[in-house]
Amino acid sequence: MKAEIIAVGSELLLGQITNTNAAFISARLAEVGIDVYYHTVVGDNPNRLEDAITIAQKRADLIIFSGGLGPTKDDLTKETIAKMLGTELESDHAALLAIEAYFKRTGRTMTENNKKQALVLAGSTVLTNNFGMAPGMALEKNGKCYILLPGPPHEMEPMFETEAIPYLLGTSGKREVIVSRVLKFYGIGEAELEYRVQSILEKQTNPTVAPLASPDSVILRLTAKADTNEAAQKLIAPVELEIRSLVGQFIYGTDDDTLSSKAAELLVGNKLTISAAESLTAGLFMAELADVPGISSSLKGGVVVYDEDAKMRQLDIPGTLLDEYGVVSSECATALARNVKRKFGSDIGVGLTGAAGPDPHDGKPVGTVWIGIAFQDEEVKTFKLDLSGSRNANRKRAARFALYYLIKEMKGQLAEN
Amino acid sequence: MKAEIIAVGSELLLGQITNTNAAFISARLAEVGIDVYYHTVVGDNPNRLEDAITIAQKRADLIIFSGGLGPTKDDLTKETIAKMLGTELESDHAALLAIEAYFKRTGRTMTENNKKQALVLAGSTVLTNNFGMAPGMALEKNGKCYILLPGPPHEMEPMFETEAIPYLLGTSGKREVIVSRVLKFYGIGEAELEYRVQSILEKQTNPTVAPLASPDSVILRLTAKADTNEAAQKLIAPVELEIRSLVGQFIYGTDDDTLSSKAAELLVGNKLTISAAESLTAGLFMAELADVPGISSSLKGGVVVYDEDAKMRQLDIPGTLLDEYGVVSSECATALARNVKRKFGSDIGVGLTGAAGPDPHDGKPVGTVWIGIAFQDEEVKTFKLDLSGSRNANRKRAARFALYYLIKEMKGQLAEN
Repeated sequence: MKAEIIAVGSELLLGQITNTNAAFISARLAEVGIDVYYHTVVGDNPNRLEDAITIAQKRADLIIFSGGLGPTKDDLTKETIAKMLGTELESDHAALLAIEAYFKRTGRTMTENNKKQALVLAGSTVLTNNFGMAPGMALEKNGKCYILLPGPPHEMEPMFETEAIPYLLGTSGKREVIVSRVLKFYGIGEAELEYRVQSILEKQTNPTVAPLASPDSVILRLTAKADTNEAAQKLIAPVELEIRSLVGQFIYGTDDDTLSSKAAELLVGNKLTISAAESLTAGLFMAELADVPGISSSLKGGVVVYDEDAKMRQLDIPGTLLDEYGVVSSECATALARNVKRKFGSDIGVGLTGAAGPDPHDGKPVGTVWIGIAFQDEEVKTFKLDLSGSRNANRKRAARFALYYLIKEMKGQLAEN
Repeated sequence: MKAEIIAVGSELLLGQITNTNAAFISARLAEVGIDVYYHTVVGDNPNRLEDAITIAQKRADLIIFSGGLGPTKDDLTKETIAKMLGTELESDHAALLAIEAYFKRTGRTMTENNKKQALVLAGSTVLTNNFGMAPGMALEKNGKCYILLPGPPHEMEPMFETEAIPYLLGTSGKREVIVSRVLKFYGIGEAELEYRVQSILEKQTNPTVAPLASPDSVILRLTAKADTNEAAQKLIAPVELEIRSLVGQFIYGTDDDTLSSKAAELLVGNKLTISAAESLTAGLFMAELADVPGISSSLKGGVVVYDEDAKMRQLDIPGTLLDEYGVVSSECATALARNVKRKFGSDIGVGLTGAAGPDPHDGKPVGTVWIGIAFQDEEVKTFKLDLSGSRNANRKRAARFALYYLIKEMKGQLAEN
């Protein structure tokens, strides 16, 4: 079954709102195994809407509309479809009662055009709207399936979930289960990851393996179709294993994990406390960690030491060390990590120093970052980054790399002990 | 000129990402007077992309593409267009050098497929990508204008603004000048702002006055069309004045100002130094301030005091104060601001404490936040927020409100002295 989603509304074409409905509907259709081939957005103009529907009828079996079911003159979705299919519009009694009840409840006056919202395509299955007035519709005609949904996401999303999906599963007769597994990477670019797992990307059909890049991380999504959840999991397991054998060192988590949630899970789960001394990141590392609810038992706090004077006074970094090695150095990162750990009495201390940009800092080129991690009584380990983004991209990436190295360090140390 | 925006990428059809590019491009085109008639989304499939382009050629004069310019085999936008228009792809020397420099700088290995990103349509105007590797292109052929942009919004948006818009204004032969003036608000919701300036919104046509809301701030964009820049400015000035007389107390800046850039401008311009003690925000306030280049002369640093023990030990907050008033209190915010100011020897100290959620903190309901600002020898002022978002929305808004109050406080104090 090939699907197309047509969103109707001039406010979309003016960029006043984003078409989140198409993304929501697509994600849910993917999960039930229906392929979406096109999204179209068209304004509140009956001729152009008719053209868009004519095109969709040629290339899709299932056409899902969102928007244009409201009470105003601009709202013309069902009128246009009725005209094209030679179908009447008739008042739906239940929908009309619901609209009347809504106005009674809110004490507002019902105007004549509100009755228009109770009109539905003759012969269609009415989809109840629990969060607004316009009912949805599902209609099969000439081998095509038409589903009409209201535009506001808070009305459309629950209607799609509780009314449209069961309708589609009932009519499409599918018994397939779709299971996705997401592997999350850091410290490797999309192109390099694809290059390294190319053989898997090319040969895999079930599960499919798809890479996806966000500004500073990459994921691989494994999606299997099978008769049962268990059977789908069995298809995924060996492919995941093969991927891990190739690029496992860059995987920091799976599914809903984020760098901060994974770091927090390891900290809290192992009752480890942490503090940080941040220079270029100025608090970003701690703020990202504090994104995770429940972190307060592990995150003691830390110090932002933005100028040299503060570094020396607040964290007892000797002036001679800064003179000899500079602020952007492995030695400074080591001292920051060690001294903040001692000052806050934590198990782990993290130090971050670097040249964020736009100008070089202390003779070091923009993008040079040193991260120090002091883990219990171990020697402090340091990591160097050479970043190439804007000032703020560099600062964000430095904080994320610190989370990534922290995760690797905890996994390594915990495995050893 | 009729425009259509074609976004290319299977991840859009799978609902993994939302087509924010179409909304962004549409909003900017609306501002320069170009009408968008359709948005289309198509997957990484050359045949279906070709079909979509054929349709667009019939109904649009300007076709703008986003996505499909990456290094992988899936990325086929320019290849498909080249084939359809009978145009060659040729390596762009500047783009190739930029890609090579990127890999040299980051120490990563350039693979063969990265070279593909430097290929551009013969005869096209190359649009520079300042935030990624794939260059954009603009090409006119057979009376149609094709603009190709990369998919990642952080690459596409600046390219569209600084490269595509000037190209479009240059080629569209328009002699009109379009001047925009943005007024930026904090501490007022979109609905209330619209209500208060309703009379202006309704009567204005040149300049147009358009409100735009992001999750936690609101802007008004005044856009005037005239023969010269000067004439456009003259149209804008009296309307801006009228808006300021109605809601001026909520305006923190204009145009490219952000809360942090405005705060930094006032700090650095007046040679004021600052430090902060952050509890619920855990570094977000300092990190936002450090977003601004040049802040290092003013930002001394600060302390993240996430647990009670750290507050007492690192900032000498008396246990009796915490026992009597609690951690989430005006008294605690006052002590944090005063003590961090003294510890770092700065002119201004900011203290942030509150209950971010998901659970109440120290008996105070989720969303309760106290901000303290110690300004030179003045009494510490405190501000209370009652926020209603998620944990992380509350933390971000607390940091932004602290910047907003800091701006107001500096303006007030500087005006008095």
